[in-house]
Amino acid sequence: MKKLNGVIDSQQFDQETLNSVFRISADMEKMQSHDLLKGKIMASLFYEPSTRTRLSFEAAMCRLGGQVISTENAQQFSSKAKGESLEDSIRVISGYCDTIVLRYHKEGGAARAQQFSKVPVINAGDGKGQHPTQALLDLYTIKKSFGKLSGLTVAMVGDLSNGRTVRSLSYMLGKHYSDNKIIFVSPKQTRMGEDVKQYLTSHKINWEETDNLKAAAPQADVIYQTRVQRERFQDGDSAVYEQVIKESERFNVNGELLALMKKDSIVMHPLPRVTEISYSVDQDPRARYFEQAENGLFVRMALLKMILSGY
Amino acid sequence: MKKLNGVIDSQQFDQETLNSVFRISADMEKMQSHDLLKGKIMASLFYEPSTRTRLSFEAAMCRLGGQVISTENAQQFSSKAKGESLEDSIRVISGYCDTIVLRYHKEGGAARAQQFSKVPVINAGDGKGQHPTQALLDLYTIKKSFGKLSGLTVAMVGDLSNGRTVRSLSYMLGKHYSDNKIIFVSPKQTRMGEDVKQYLTSHKINWEETDNLKAAAPQADVIYQTRVQRERFQDGDSAVYEQVIKESERFNVNGELLALMKKDSIVMHPLPRVTEISYSVDQDPRARYFEQAENGLFVRMALLKMILSGY
Amino acid sequence: MKKLNGVIDSQQFDQETLNSVFRISADMEKMQSHDLLKGKIMASLFYEPSTRTRLSFEAAMCRLGGQVISTENAQQFSSKAKGESLEDSIRVISGYCDTIVLRYHKEGGAARAQQFSKVPVINAGDGKGQHPTQALLDLYTIKKSFGKLSGLTVAMVGDLSNGRTVRSLSYMLGKHYSDNKIIFVSPKQTRMGEDVKQYLTSHKINWEETDNLKAAAPQADVIYQTRVQRERFQDGDSAVYEQVIKESERFNVNGELLALMKKDSIVMHPLPRVTEISYSVDQDPRARYFEQAENGLFVRMALLKMILSGY
Repeated sequence: MKKLNGVIDSQQFDQETLNSVFRISADMEKMQSHDLLKGKIMASLFYEPSTRTRLSFEAAMCRLGGQVISTENAQQFSSKAKGESLEDSIRVISGYCDTIVLRYHKEGGAARAQQFSKVPVINAGDGKGQHPTQALLDLYTIKKSFGKLSGLTVAMVGDLSNGRTVRSLSYMLGKHYSDNKIIFVSPKQTRMGEDVKQYLTSHKINWEETDNLKAAAPQADVIYQTRVQRERFQDGDSAVYEQVIKESERFNVNGELLALMKKDSIVMHPLPRVTEISYSVDQDPRARYFEQAENGLFVRMALLKMILSGY
Repeated sequence: MKKLNGVIDSQQFDQETLNSVFRISADMEKMQSHDLLKGKIMASLFYEPSTRTRLSFEAAMCRLGGQVISTENAQQFSSKAKGESLEDSIRVISGYCDTIVLRYHKEGGAARAQQFSKVPVINAGDGKGQHPTQALLDLYTIKKSFGKLSGLTVAMVGDLSNGRTVRSLSYMLGKHYSDNKIIFVSPKQTRMGEDVKQYLTSHKINWEETDNLKAAAPQADVIYQTRVQRERFQDGDSAVYEQVIKESERFNVNGELLALMKKDSIVMHPLPRVTEISYSVDQDPRARYFEQAENGLFVRMALLKMILSGY
Repeated sequence: MKKLNGVIDSQQFDQETLNSVFRISADMEKMQSHDLLKGKIMASLFYEPSTRTRLSFEAAMCRLGGQVISTENAQQFSSKAKGESLEDSIRVISGYCDTIVLRYHKEGGAARAQQFSKVPVINAGDGKGQHPTQALLDLYTIKKSFGKLSGLTVAMVGDLSNGRTVRSLSYMLGKHYSDNKIIFVSPKQTRMGEDVKQYLTSHKINWEETDNLKAAAPQADVIYQTRVQRERFQDGDSAVYEQVIKESERFNVNGELLALMKKDSIVMHPLPRVTEISYSVDQDPRARYFEQAENGLFVRMALLKMILSGY
């Protein structure tokens, strides 16, 4: 029986562990026992609010019979003390629980926390850094839809420069699975970063870059749409933001675009969406973003089991 | 075995269902089992804080052995996304839980939510709209006190124009029960709305309107006192508000008024109160507002049972 | 089988009850059962945020199998109603739970609450008043370290005028245990209050006052370091605060000071710390502040057991 020692970044998952995550997630979809994690406590320690992610983790813990202590107010620790370190807070809180789900506003928070925690840390997003459980649920959703994670063409659309999710997904698809093609579709202001593109090139992953969604749509098995994240633009960048929003209209998924897509393709989105996917798309069987969100519950149940009970 | 499909408005309750609610609420007062809803999850999704209502629902769920995921910060869903729809949020959250308790800042929120939710929705107040579980606990309190909901004279006092609770209670007393008389007692600025008065008239319910509480008190079986809700006045209306507060002093329940009331009458209030009931009244056996609040626990336990386990 | 009727202040604990608290806390460190408080509900009612204290209490309740309803937003009760009394809020909330953990922003809150509550109240800090569970966990930590609470020299360092914890600890060490010596080490602006010093003198407890930490360090069995609490200074006192901070540097615990301390002495701190203990001290076996925080969990478990299940 192995145990997972926390979830810090996407890079920690080798293919065998990924297979375990997906297998156990599938088990969780039909889970009946509610006592598996009885007596275990998960602490939600959120330095910035992310209600959706927090509730998803907390529901996962409850479904397994565990208990939750929770704060979206963790900045209080440091504001009151005018600068208590994350490390001190983690040392204290890790004495109260069996695992910590950490949302931190700065890159590297989860890795720092893990060094000082007595219990496994799960990264629920650290600023511009990683959000590995999102990457896992994205992969799980693709695998459920196609029965495989290879031989697929994935179009990533929208704000690719600021999006943690598309960065992680690119990396995971490139590293562990063969024969995939990635098409980056975005306005020129929000193109995918050079680091990811160089990684893909050096690992001989097929990728393209375009600003023409209509041309990309007929090839794609997956359209992974993203929202322009205003909060990731610096204060001075509101002119850039407005320009990006205006240009983004060409990148919306709507009925017209659906007509160009393959019958068995799927549309994903990490949510929340604003206007980048029309409401009319929701009725189409290819729309998978709400199922994708629900898959987050099963993947997080699986990770909690793997961490707290073993696999 | 029936199941209640959510609680959206007062109108949905026919007399048979009301009787079930009251019977099961009485059972809940002596409830010993703590496992009835084991494995079930209730999500508290509050778009504006209402700590009292939220804690009452959450305690009800805990008393029945269920688990709770909770936020008073639900506006975060939409603020972050600059306008994510209630519908999208509900679709996601309803994938994490077995029922949603929704507090929404705009009328009609619960009905919109129910359309898109995979699980039953319970309306915990939607702006100027409804607050049906409050109406049910009010009726339950009257029924416990008098053993009946007919043949009673109910004086509703204070801010009748903005009060959801008095509107719902008027409606319920008029629709389902016979031979009641309602006396609306208020300053002229906060009179009961014409719609409710017309409803009562067209259903041949006996009602009066007065600004003389002392004259109404000796007739009343129930004095239902309410607070002037500053937050329901528009920004420009502060002059009106000040005027109302000043006039309201004549409508306070105090020792002098108690002396005019019947021996077996009762004083109710949805709480919180400020000055509209004197503290000295608390010691009088006719004061029922704290018991009324506690009845909310039993009624909400009953509703959760009816929704999640059946009846 | 006795039951504790709440925890309001340090003075309520006689020596026999203290012994029970320490004995049961030790049991809690190896507690295996998770069902002791099954079916019981604890309400966390916090009028100001104190995430660390709240999570510690909530973890304690969860470890014993109980359930928690919680708010850090309790000022909402009163702000909405423009002045609902603590007493009314307590009467309502005490109808929903089996014990209330109250954090209040004004001295005397817990005692007022206990008068109106139907269930035992636990004081989790009331402004400049008391924080008795902190005092108990401090004593428990000293007892665990030395096997006794007598015959010890305790140096209390830093902001002694504003610190609830050092006041309570002085009082408890003086009242119940013999042959201790207390050294108050602070800048002149933040000296220990005359009331405590007079209490010690009149009870023939040996105490000294100094501003020379280096001279005090070699004598001390315990150095109890504290943080200058900016939030306890009045708005106009920022000049005083800056002066205190500047002077406080002489009162920091660091490697140099450790070298002067006894081999078997200990360093305590109620946390959060800022700069008053150097990070390098953390590695020293004499550093006990993180263990001290964890002891808070066991002491709070013990108190919850003593209140809700008996002893």
